[in-house]
Amino acid sequence: MLVVMQSHATEEQVRAVCDRIESLGLKAHPIPGSGRTAIGITGNNGAIDLGVLESMAGVIECIPVTKPYKLVSRDVKEEDTVVTIPTPSGDVLVGGSHIAMVAGPCAVETEEQCFAIAQQLKSTGVRLFRGGAYKPRTSPYSFQGLGLSGLKILSRVRKDYGFGIVTEAIDNESLDLVEEYADVIQIGARNMQNFSLLKRAGRAKLPVLLKRGMAATLDEFLMAAEYILSEGNYKVMLCERGVRTFSDFSRNTLDLAVIPAVQKRSHLPILVDPSHGTGKRHKVLPLSRAAIAVGADGLLVEVHHQPEKALSDGMQSILPTEYAALAKEIHQLATLFHRILN
Amino acid sequence: MLVVMQSHATEEQVRAVCDRIESLGLKAHPIPGSGRTAIGITGNNGAIDLGVLESMAGVIECIPVTKPYKLVSRDVKEEDTVVTIPTPSGDVLVGGSHIAMVAGPCAVETEEQCFAIAQQLKSTGVRLFRGGAYKPRTSPYSFQGLGLSGLKILSRVRKDYGFGIVTEAIDNESLDLVEEYADVIQIGARNMQNFSLLKRAGRAKLPVLLKRGMAATLDEFLMAAEYILSEGNYKVMLCERGVRTFSDFSRNTLDLAVIPAVQKRSHLPILVDPSHGTGKRHKVLPLSRAAIAVGADGLLVEVHHQPEKALSDGMQSILPTEYAALAKEIHQLATLFHRILN
Amino acid sequence: MLVVMQSHATEEQVRAVCDRIESLGLKAHPIPGSGRTAIGITGNNGAIDLGVLESMAGVIECIPVTKPYKLVSRDVKEEDTVVTIPTPSGDVLVGGSHIAMVAGPCAVETEEQCFAIAQQLKSTGVRLFRGGAYKPRTSPYSFQGLGLSGLKILSRVRKDYGFGIVTEAIDNESLDLVEEYADVIQIGARNMQNFSLLKRAGRAKLPVLLKRGMAATLDEFLMAAEYILSEGNYKVMLCERGVRTFSDFSRNTLDLAVIPAVQKRSHLPILVDPSHGTGKRHKVLPLSRAAIAVGADGLLVEVHHQPEKALSDGMQSILPTEYAALAKEIHQLATLFHRILN
Amino acid sequence: MLVVMQSHATEEQVRAVCDRIESLGLKAHPIPGSGRTAIGITGNNGAIDLGVLESMAGVIECIPVTKPYKLVSRDVKEEDTVVTIPTPSGDVLVGGSHIAMVAGPCAVETEEQCFAIAQQLKSTGVRLFRGGAYKPRTSPYSFQGLGLSGLKILSRVRKDYGFGIVTEAIDNESLDLVEEYADVIQIGARNMQNFSLLKRAGRAKLPVLLKRGMAATLDEFLMAAEYILSEGNYKVMLCERGVRTFSDFSRNTLDLAVIPAVQKRSHLPILVDPSHGTGKRHKVLPLSRAAIAVGADGLLVEVHHQPEKALSDGMQSILPTEYAALAKEIHQLATLFHRILN
Repeated sequence: MLVVMQSHATEEQVRAVCDRIESLGLKAHPIPGSGRTAIGITGNNGAIDLGVLESMAGVIECIPVTKPYKLVSRDVKEEDTVVTIPTPSGDVLVGGSHIAMVAGPCAVETEEQCFAIAQQLKSTGVRLFRGGAYKPRTSPYSFQGLGLSGLKILSRVRKDYGFGIVTEAIDNESLDLVEEYADVIQIGARNMQNFSLLKRAGRAKLPVLLKRGMAATLDEFLMAAEYILSEGNYKVMLCERGVRTFSDFSRNTLDLAVIPAVQKRSHLPILVDPSHGTGKRHKVLPLSRAAIAVGADGLLVEVHHQPEKALSDGMQSILPTEYAALAKEIHQLATLFHRILN
Repeated sequence: MLVVMQSHATEEQVRAVCDRIESLGLKAHPIPGSGRTAIGITGNNGAIDLGVLESMAGVIECIPVTKPYKLVSRDVKEEDTVVTIPTPSGDVLVGGSHIAMVAGPCAVETEEQCFAIAQQLKSTGVRLFRGGAYKPRTSPYSFQGLGLSGLKILSRVRKDYGFGIVTEAIDNESLDLVEEYADVIQIGARNMQNFSLLKRAGRAKLPVLLKRGMAATLDEFLMAAEYILSEGNYKVMLCERGVRTFSDFSRNTLDLAVIPAVQKRSHLPILVDPSHGTGKRHKVLPLSRAAIAVGADGLLVEVHHQPEKALSDGMQSILPTEYAALAKEIHQLATLFHRILN
Repeated sequence: MLVVMQSHATEEQVRAVCDRIESLGLKAHPIPGSGRTAIGITGNNGAIDLGVLESMAGVIECIPVTKPYKLVSRDVKEEDTVVTIPTPSGDVLVGGSHIAMVAGPCAVETEEQCFAIAQQLKSTGVRLFRGGAYKPRTSPYSFQGLGLSGLKILSRVRKDYGFGIVTEAIDNESLDLVEEYADVIQIGARNMQNFSLLKRAGRAKLPVLLKRGMAATLDEFLMAAEYILSEGNYKVMLCERGVRTFSDFSRNTLDLAVIPAVQKRSHLPILVDPSHGTGKRHKVLPLSRAAIAVGADGLLVEVHHQPEKALSDGMQSILPTEYAALAKEIHQLATLFHRILN
Repeated sequence: MLVVMQSHATEEQVRAVCDRIESLGLKAHPIPGSGRTAIGITGNNGAIDLGVLESMAGVIECIPVTKPYKLVSRDVKEEDTVVTIPTPSGDVLVGGSHIAMVAGPCAVETEEQCFAIAQQLKSTGVRLFRGGAYKPRTSPYSFQGLGLSGLKILSRVRKDYGFGIVTEAIDNESLDLVEEYADVIQIGARNMQNFSLLKRAGRAKLPVLLKRGMAATLDEFLMAAEYILSEGNYKVMLCERGVRTFSDFSRNTLDLAVIPAVQKRSHLPILVDPSHGTGKRHKVLPLSRAAIAVGADGLLVEVHHQPEKALSDGMQSILPTEYAALAKEIHQLATLFHRILN
């Protein structure tokens, strides 16, 4: 924390702030400048909220300095984390030099639907299948997912096609079931700060895919992951899926600069979801290319064989044939950037 | 839904879109304009996601028209909802001509703290006491609240001072307990789209105070309330607490225009939380005045007798004496605007 | 500037950063913390862009500390600036305890229109009349204003009704003419960082009303005012008119918290434009009340006697009768807050 | 325009709205739905602001339908515009299959600086040199550019190295000079809605590079270009340079989804400026790759041989050697995507 004093702050005011800091058991470091004095504070382990110093006489502003995350930070672990996802057809690796593709429908609707899509995806080389059995929907009147019977369909897709299954949990109850039927637990954007759910995911045995909230800063995103790691689950993959801005031509604004920003601060892998990130079918392909080019560790892509009949998000789902073309391009880009696509 | 065609779209393209609409069991209404044709769609009950029409040849854009909310809408109930909160010292009314003040610390820390604050608040006329026993915190290493023992402290505050208790539930387990000990269940901003929790609150017997999410549009905010009403609980109060923007001098941007916007569309009361809405003590008083002036049905204000020792949000808590001065100003404003302050 | 080092930064890396700082003629103040070292920098007069230190080995972040504004700051002048606007009917004061109302049509359309509106406004007590002769419009095909003949109409309104005239200049040429015909030069939101225009306004003899840009931070807003003061014109009034956010129910998001934020940092008066700030007629009245309640030094309100025939912004213009009711409420609020309304 | 009625709107209210529409010389098309009636409006050439209908009884909302842009639209010209920039070393093409690189310092500081950078850039294959002689700076106390003598330095760079020169004009006066000395007139983000300057650029003979404003919607961006085309200059290149959001780890949020969005609606080429778009040196390379992968028609990259001594934006400038590595990668990507890099 740095306390910035007003330029006409008196020596008494500077001393009073220092005294208050010291009285809290911390150390004050006044730095007299040409225009004004700033006071550095050390010794704070995060338990004390120093913002209140801002209301002391002569203080103009308090600036936080120390980053609050620990286990997710490269300060603690310098090398990239590579998450291993065991699947019926062998391990899938995510992170480091490994790029992973995840594809499938937004929602599990019927066994026929999932098998039709899985069948067509199989030949593209994708090894992780996504599909929601529990759907967080803006409206209570929209399709809310098949629940347990959806998980059972995914489990049959897993068995018949050898895919690893990535599916969302929306509360502690559904997480118990997802843990039983799937290979990766997805935490959606709306639940990024559902700390009760994050703690439960931290006690799960499966890898977790954590999506960035629609208004999450980088620190909040990393701290949400920190919740999971702090409970003992180190197999966390992050996922950028677009943030909310004034921008009006796409459902969200895909913030690809977060990829190098995360990679600078954290050792965790980070994927991109260009389907939710844009909300428009014709933008999924170009933004997928961009995500790999910027250095993402994988993609989540919504694929539906009959998008116009999809019960959710048909607008942003691409056809299996379009996915096949995309997969080919991603393969070329991975080669160009010396990365391994699985 | 309105489908807007490109200006050089052919008659065949327009017909193809109409055919697709009709094949889905809906009715197409082409409106030929001077520059281009638009096609209105009726008969959709919300189950079909028509955005996929956007990828048909000749289509430039799909514009949703119908608002998705029902029970929260003035279409269904024209007159203002007045929520009744039974407290030991009689009913508190919120909505219509009634304004309610809610005050207390961010977090329940100790019995001494709560009683000290309650004691000083008592004389200000406030009848609803707030305080968090379950605290959603950005960091897993920050104080997470006292949990059940915090609820028990609140319950003693209730008994000794006659306050109604407003406190937050963060998951289904804590909601069970809040329902037992408090008078109003608060759903925080981070959980505004925790649909599992909203449904549970909809089955609760107590009134619910629902805070707007940090990036929630008006429709999303009202749809979150719709979740609660659709489960049978009609005693819902909304609360604006600031949204996330680029604006850098306050913790959030308090969006006071949402008050008349909600009042135009919905019959539910709406309060304002100027403490979280600004995150800075010196802004709480002016923004409180503004909230009442714009027409809010009440205020949630964080008050702490020793803000510099607060375990959370000390930066935005005001002193009991400051609150007393605020309460006096709010009383004058309520009189000016012919409203009843309880 | 504060340079934050990585927690595993070596002593050599810290020393290298300090050496680089000293080599630029500045002074480095290393502050060793429990987790990491931070390095304060003093002696920089703003001419050196220290952000490049961020790319040195071991550095995690550079945090600017010193605020760049000078003349607009309370550091330089503690007491409120009161701007005096000479009008045919005597001086109008803005700032300190003085609140000023500014009303009139968005655009000057015809002499009949301006006189009809002026006639009806006269009895409300308003003394400053607004109306655009030069209109910055999103589309080149929209009405662009009457230019010089519009200024001449305003000048006749001035003469016949005794109003002071507030009108916008959009480039150096129009500013020359506005200076000749009006009493206050308005700089619009889109030109808030048109530095060429700001410098010209700084050399003008008239007071300047500077609107906040749609995406301007507080620092940028104050620095835009600094441009004007730095050229010698100290008669500057700021104006909040809404910022651009994701919020979808109003044209802009009126950021009323900027009022106390400006008042903490700067001595300049600040007004609010609730017409542009909301873009919706039914929100103008409640947000006007809120603006005065939060402590604004005045209001700019668009009034049109026939909004449905307005050539611009009819959607947000209120009727003269509505304005009269508003003026009465503002008078009551001003009295309540011990301010003088002129 | 589509007028949406409340669900309990009476037939009289619907008829009153239709009558008002017809009285304005337009045609009303009522579309009765299951829940509510919507009224389509045709015949409006944009001169009438229909938002005022929103205040009529029974109306809930007015939704604009027709896009306002004409000359920039693919409705008017379906094939991609390829802009030709004549340079001493032959034409440079931008748009369609042609990708163009633009590199150079943020600001022209001295002849030595420009020549040093130009010398090192020459071998990378870049053919367009950027450098600001007029610098829009947030602070009046920051380096404002060398003005005319800067243009003369650029002109010597042009002569000695054969580069085409891209440089910014900030007002009508500087545009006159830029037109004389440079090959492309740049309009910066802060001036995107400086309509006076846009009109002047529309009467210039040189191609114009128009940067997106920090809070510009897609429609506003295209309408700004429309201003230039409507004055007769069809040689317009657009440029995405990041928008302002809550995102805190980069200076701006680079909105790469705008590239396919522009390409769907407009025939104009669009480039990306990853230097301003991120404001951080270590993000320039990954975001440059992403920009080409998403389909941009070129890049503007800030290069400085001594970033730590740069008078502006050193923080985001890369070294000539880093640029050479980037150019090589871009070449590979262009080949992969079957585009021609010049």
